[in-house]
This record gives sequence, C-alpha cells and structure tokens, in this order.
Amino acid sequence: MQVNQQRLRSDIESNAEFGAVPTAEGRGRTVLTGSEADRRAREFLCERLRDAGLTIRIDDVGNIVGRWVPESADPDAAPVATGSHLDSVPEGGIFDGPLGVYAALESVRAMQDAGVEPTRPVDVVCFTEEEGQRFGGGLIGSAVATGAMTAEEALAIEDQDGIPLGDVLADIGYRGEGVVDASAWDAWLELHIEQSERLEDADVPAGVVTSIVGLSRCAVEISGEANHAGSTLMDDRSDALTAASEFVLDVERATKDRRAESETVVGTVGKLDVSPNAPNVIAGNVSLTVDVRDVDYGSIEHVIAEARDSLDRIEAERPVETTLEHPWDRRPIEMSERCRSALHAAGEDADLSTMDLHSGAGHDTMHVAEVTDAALLFAPSRDGISHNPLEWTDWTDCADATRVLAGAVADLATQ
Amino acid sequence: MQVNQQRLRSDIESNAEFGAVPTAEGRGRTVLTGSEADRRAREFLCERLRDAGLTIRIDDVGNIVGRWVPESADPDAAPVATGSHLDSVPEGGIFDGPLGVYAALESVRAMQDAGVEPTRPVDVVCFTEEEGQRFGGGLIGSAVATGAMTAEEALAIEDQDGIPLGDVLADIGYRGEGVVDASAWDAWLELHIEQSERLEDADVPAGVVTSIVGLSRCAVEISGEANHAGSTLMDDRSDALTAASEFVLDVERATKDRRAESETVVGTVGKLDVSPNAPNVIAGNVSLTVDVRDVDYGSIEHVIAEARDSLDRIEAERPVETTLEHPWDRRPIEMSERCRSALHAAGEDADLSTMDLHSGAGHDTMHVAEVTDAALLFAPSRDGISHNPLEWTDWTDCADATRVLAGAVADLATQ
Repeated sequence: MQVNQQRLRSDIESNAEFGAVPTAEGRGRTVLTGSEADRRAREFLCERLRDAGLTIRIDDVGNIVGRWVPESADPDAAPVATGSHLDSVPEGGIFDGPLGVYAALESVRAMQDAGVEPTRPVDVVCFTEEEGQRFGGGLIGSAVATGAMTAEEALAIEDQDGIPLGDVLADIGYRGEGVVDASAWDAWLELHIEQSERLEDADVPAGVVTSIVGLSRCAVEISGEANHAGSTLMDDRSDALTAASEFVLDVERATKDRRAESETVVGTVGKLDVSPNAPNVIAGNVSLTVDVRDVDYGSIEHVIAEARDSLDRIEAERPVETTLEHPWDRRPIEMSERCRSALHAAGEDADLSTMDLHSGAGHDTMHVAEVTDAALLFAPSRDGISHNPLEWTDWTDCADATRVLAGAVADLATQ
Repeated sequence: MQVNQQRLRSDIESNAEFGAVPTAEGRGRTVLTGSEADRRAREFLCERLRDAGLTIRIDDVGNIVGRWVPESADPDAAPVATGSHLDSVPEGGIFDGPLGVYAALESVRAMQDAGVEPTRPVDVVCFTEEEGQRFGGGLIGSAVATGAMTAEEALAIEDQDGIPLGDVLADIGYRGEGVVDASAWDAWLELHIEQSERLEDADVPAGVVTSIVGLSRCAVEISGEANHAGSTLMDDRSDALTAASEFVLDVERATKDRRAESETVVGTVGKLDVSPNAPNVIAGNVSLTVDVRDVDYGSIEHVIAEARDSLDRIEAERPVETTLEHPWDRRPIEMSERCRSALHAAGEDADLSTMDLHSGAGHDTMHVAEVTDAALLFAPSRDGISHNPLEWTDWTDCADATRVLAGAVADLATQ
C-alpha cells in the first residue's frame, strides 16, 4: 500500500504554521491547549478529516474523532483507532504529536486510494492536552477516554491563572458532548517520533514499542525566608535556593546510582521556580517538579524514596521546610502482542525493517493500553532531539513509518 | 531638640498609601519608578516640603531637593544634605527609603520648631530609582548626582519593555533640569532601616555605620540541551539545571569558607531562571545572578574567583557551556569620621545610645560618600526583615533615630 508523502508533508507543514515561533534554527511552535493556535490547528484537522469523507465527533473534553465507515465495513463493529495529539510544549517541534495525527489520516486515505475493504470502521483520533503544559499533568484527553479521569475532573483542572480547561475549550468552540470510549475500540495504534537515538543509530525506519515506562511525578516546595542579600549574614539565612540545589543534585545522584539495577531509569527536575527571584533578595521559596520514569517500577519507587530521604536530610541540615506531593504515579505497561505483530508484519510487507524498543515517554497510548489492545510505533528522530525547534524527522522517514502504520491499520481493520 | 513623632508617622503612613498592596500581614507597597504610585508619592513629598517653607528643585533624572535657607544661614554656604528614596521593591515595606526622606524633613521642622539657627542651608533629598527594580542596577539618582553616571546614560536606561527612564519621568512630570551636584554639599547624612537584627539584638535605637560593603554582581548563563525527560538516558543528557545547582552550592561554600578571613562576607544567588522550565523537559538553559558583598574587597574578589573556578570545573565535568559577565563591581567605602562623630554626639545629647556597625546594603550614601563627607544612620528593623510587607520599625524607634539625625544635621549645619 502506498502513502502519499507529499500529502502527508503538506498537512504537517500546514499544521506547523499554527503557533509558529521564530527561531534561528529549526522550526518551532507553541500550541497550548485552548489557545488561538490550538483552535486553528483543530479547525484545520477537522477540514482535512471532512475532505477525506470522515464523520467528526468532538467530545466533552475536546477529543476529536474522525470516523471512516467504508461500505465494506459493519458500522457497528468495534473500530480500529489510530492517532495522537496536536498540542505542543512551549517552543516545541513540529512532529511531536502531529505526525501521529496526520499519519493516521494518511493511513485512511492510503487505504481508500488502494481500495482496501476493511470490515471495521477506522477512527482517526486527536487527544486533548497530551503535553500537560497548561493543564495538569498531561495525557488528559486519553485519561478521560479510558476512564482514568472523569470529564468533570478534567474540565475543572485550572491553568496557572485559575482558568478551568472547560472554559478554554468552550471559548475556542471545542467543548463537545459525551465522552469518547476507548474501550470500545478493537485496537489502537499510535505513531510518534522516537525522541531518542536508537532507530537513528541502528538505521531502522520503524520501532515497535514493547513496553512504556512507568512515570512518577512529584511537586516539591521548599520554604525558607526571603531577606536582604546584603544585610543577612550567611549563618542567619534560610535560603530556599541553596536547599533546592542540593535536592536537584540528590535526585540526579539517586537516579544515576540506580542504573546498576535498571539502566533505563531516568529522573529529572525540569521545572524550578524561585520566589521572589531578585538578585538582591535571598530566595524565600522554591517550587519544583520531579519526573521519574522506568520500565522497572521498583526503580521508580526507589528514586522517589531517595528524593523523600533527601528532603528529610535537607530539613535536618538547613533551616527550611519542605513538602512533597506525589500526584501522578503510573506503572510501566506492556504493548499488545497482536498489535505489535501487525506492525512487524506491515514492515515486512513494505520491505521496511523494524526493531523492538521501549518507550521512555508516556504518550496517550499508555492510557489506551489499559482498556484495549494497543501498540506504539516510533519514527526516527534526528539526534533524539524533541520538545525543541531542532526536533526533526526526514519526510521520507515520516512516509516510511506511515506505511508501516497504514499496513497494520488495514490488517487489524480487516480481521 | 524634640521631633514630632505624630507628624513623622503621619507623613510615612500617608506615603504608604501610594502603591499600597493588600497583604494578609504587615503593610506592603509597590512603588516602581515612573508609576502612578511614584508620581503621587513625589507630589505628596513636594507638598510637605513646601508646607515647611522649603524651595523645591527637580533635576533632569527626577531627584527632588527641598532647600531650607534660614535667615541665620549664608545662602551661598555649602549645604548640609540629608534624605533617601521613595521607590520600593515589588511588595516591599513602608519604611525602606521613606523613613529617611521624611526623617530628613522632620529634622528641618524640628530645627525650625526649636529655633535652631544654622549657618548653612539644609537640603532634604529624594533620589530617583534607588532599588533598581524597574531600571538598571539601582542607585541611579545618586549615581548621577555624584558623577558616577551621566544624566544622558541614566535617562537612556530602558525597562524590560524597552521604555527609557527619561520617558517615564517626563510622563509623570518629574523630569526637571540640570543635575543636583552632591559634591557641593558640605556633608550628607542618610537615615535608613537596618535590614538586619544587630540593633534589635543589642536593644540600641541608632546604629552609626562605619563602612558600606563593596558589592560585585555577576550574570551567569549555563547552556545545555533541552530534551525529553523520558526519552533521554542519564548519560545522554546535557542538563543545565543540575549544572547550575552545583554552581549555586559552590558559591555558598566558597562564601562560607571565606568567613575565616572576613566574617561579614555574603554571597547570594537570588535570581535563577530555567528554560524551557517544563516538568517533562530537561533544562536547556539556566541564567542566574551572583551577588557578593563585604567590607573587605579582597574577600569579594576571592568569592568571584571561586565562582569562575566553579564554572570551569563544571564545564570540564558536564557537557554544558557557561559564561560569566561581571557588570557591577563597587569597592567598600568608609564613612566620614566627622559625620559619624556628629551622629554619636547627637545620640548622647538626646540620651539615646548608639553603636557602630557596617552596612551590608549599598544605599545612595555609597555614591555620595565618594564626593563629600557622608554617614549612614540605621534604625532598628524588626527581625531584620525588609523588602517585604512584614518590614517594621516601631514609631518610637522611628522618632528616636530621627532625633539623632536632626541633632547631627543641626550640629553640622551650624559649623
């Protein structure tokens, strides 16, 4: 089955215009949920879905599903679904998310062009707020579609200005009705850029994920006392930033030490905010996040425990107070054997090599795999860079991975 | 000589209304240079100066001088000047600056009430942009009045929106003509809150500063590579925040170690910004400031050198690049013996104990002391808190310190 590389590229490049940010190198975009860029990206997707003859449904949390029900299909059969997300991190790249959405649409168009006659409907899906940059911890649309979160809970999540998700979706005209039910899907496939260098290093165009790492995220507050940087002697200080610096290094050290047991474990403090954040004022408060992931859940637990111990030690040694909240904890999850086999077989049919690997990133598939057979396919990503305007996947690589995806969707949809 | 505590309090409390911010505890105000709050604070001061019979001059950078020329004085004699500033940090307290301005005015009124017959004019001074919260590094008005900066340089300094100081002063009607010449003053005295706890601990109402610390400020950039927190293995990372955390701790350690040579040395990283600052993205860039102060310039140089060494070591050990700029460097400065003696003598006359101490903060006096005899007087500050709505000096302490100031002004102005 052929995919149309030019059509796929045109869709992704058109989508890249929404929220485009000027950069010295690469192509950046900022598409936060509920922004004007988000509205325009969604509107363009809906147009393209309609152009391909798909019927569109928007659910209560803004998930978009375009359904293709060919004449060959039983309209009541459980659909095969495929897709990803269109939101981005601030100044992110143009492939993370959109490749999976437009490859899903291209798969349908390729099946139409090739005269494939599926027995099941095919759903092309765009989930809301995957990145979690404006609302909560991310993966919100898929959490609701899989019952991990209720729509009411999701809609009430507030951004940092106190505006709830429900309001911004209504504002951009993408708060629909009901909730997409992922458990009603026969199978789910998501194509995503790899975000590391294993495919590039192996020169393999498609990676079939065996399991997705578990992920724990913690919110830490360290409170000292804001005071004058000139008048407060070193012994009289309660400096939240020096305390936080010890913690950041402790998290790194604990994670690195754990690699003896599980070499894939990663731990990150990526967000850290200082208050009042002035050159001549000792930091009174630091809030930061800890993100720990691995295919081995015991290693995640170990690093989180070490982080707690670090805060206890810091509180004992410095005049600061600390809190740690642990709002998000998800165990590693295996991908479906049936779906993985379909991807490997599609690669073989297309004369494209495939390889097994794990996913260090969560992706919406993490949720969907809890309720139906699911698999995740990776396309190579240059130098492993993502969440950055330098994120890049060659257009031929986009098309090759889409051929694997389309073949597997066609296979699963005719079973 | 008696000061009128109620009159002084009324002035400071009236001034506290301009830019007042609601707070759960204490009294906060935000008076940024060129704001409406700044305009109203200046207008009120000018009214009060006129009420006391002073002649007002506004210079090119908005410095306000109210001159009292009593009949007893030679109008051409070099004046004795005293004052401080009215601007504040965001959500600062109500005493930092205004106490010195209104104590200066109250000193003149007290001399008038007591029938003191000075032989020199007395200038009551309010300097522009002491805090440096909106424009540049602070102490701008006194820098211009002492020739450390030209008026043209000062007026061209832009705020973060690119608006020059000259424009905002013109907008609020406080861009005058010429430049106040501090070198023409016979002597200068500034009353300020202490911002540490030495007076409170010693239960002494007035502190006479022996020297003002030198101050070095550096801007440090640490560049790594922003990348996905889940997909990038620990060994593949170039994390700017873990590198920055090492640096923050190195600055603290170097400063603490130096106390063996000079116990007053302080080093602070008070401002630190992470980019892109997202929970699931490894920090690609961190920018931070280093503020080092001491009465011993060699100790400042030592800590800055250690900070440079730390960056070299971090660059050697981690895959990051660093830069350090050192835009601001001011040597410690001794206060005038003549002015200090006048303050101690005034304390004795008023039956108020005084003590010697150093100043960890810069204050406009740091500039004025470069061009004429100058001294700095501290009033107690509860728990040493400043730059915070909880900043507090009891009204009796305000009045007592003002009695010392008024006595010294009267003494110097009749010499």
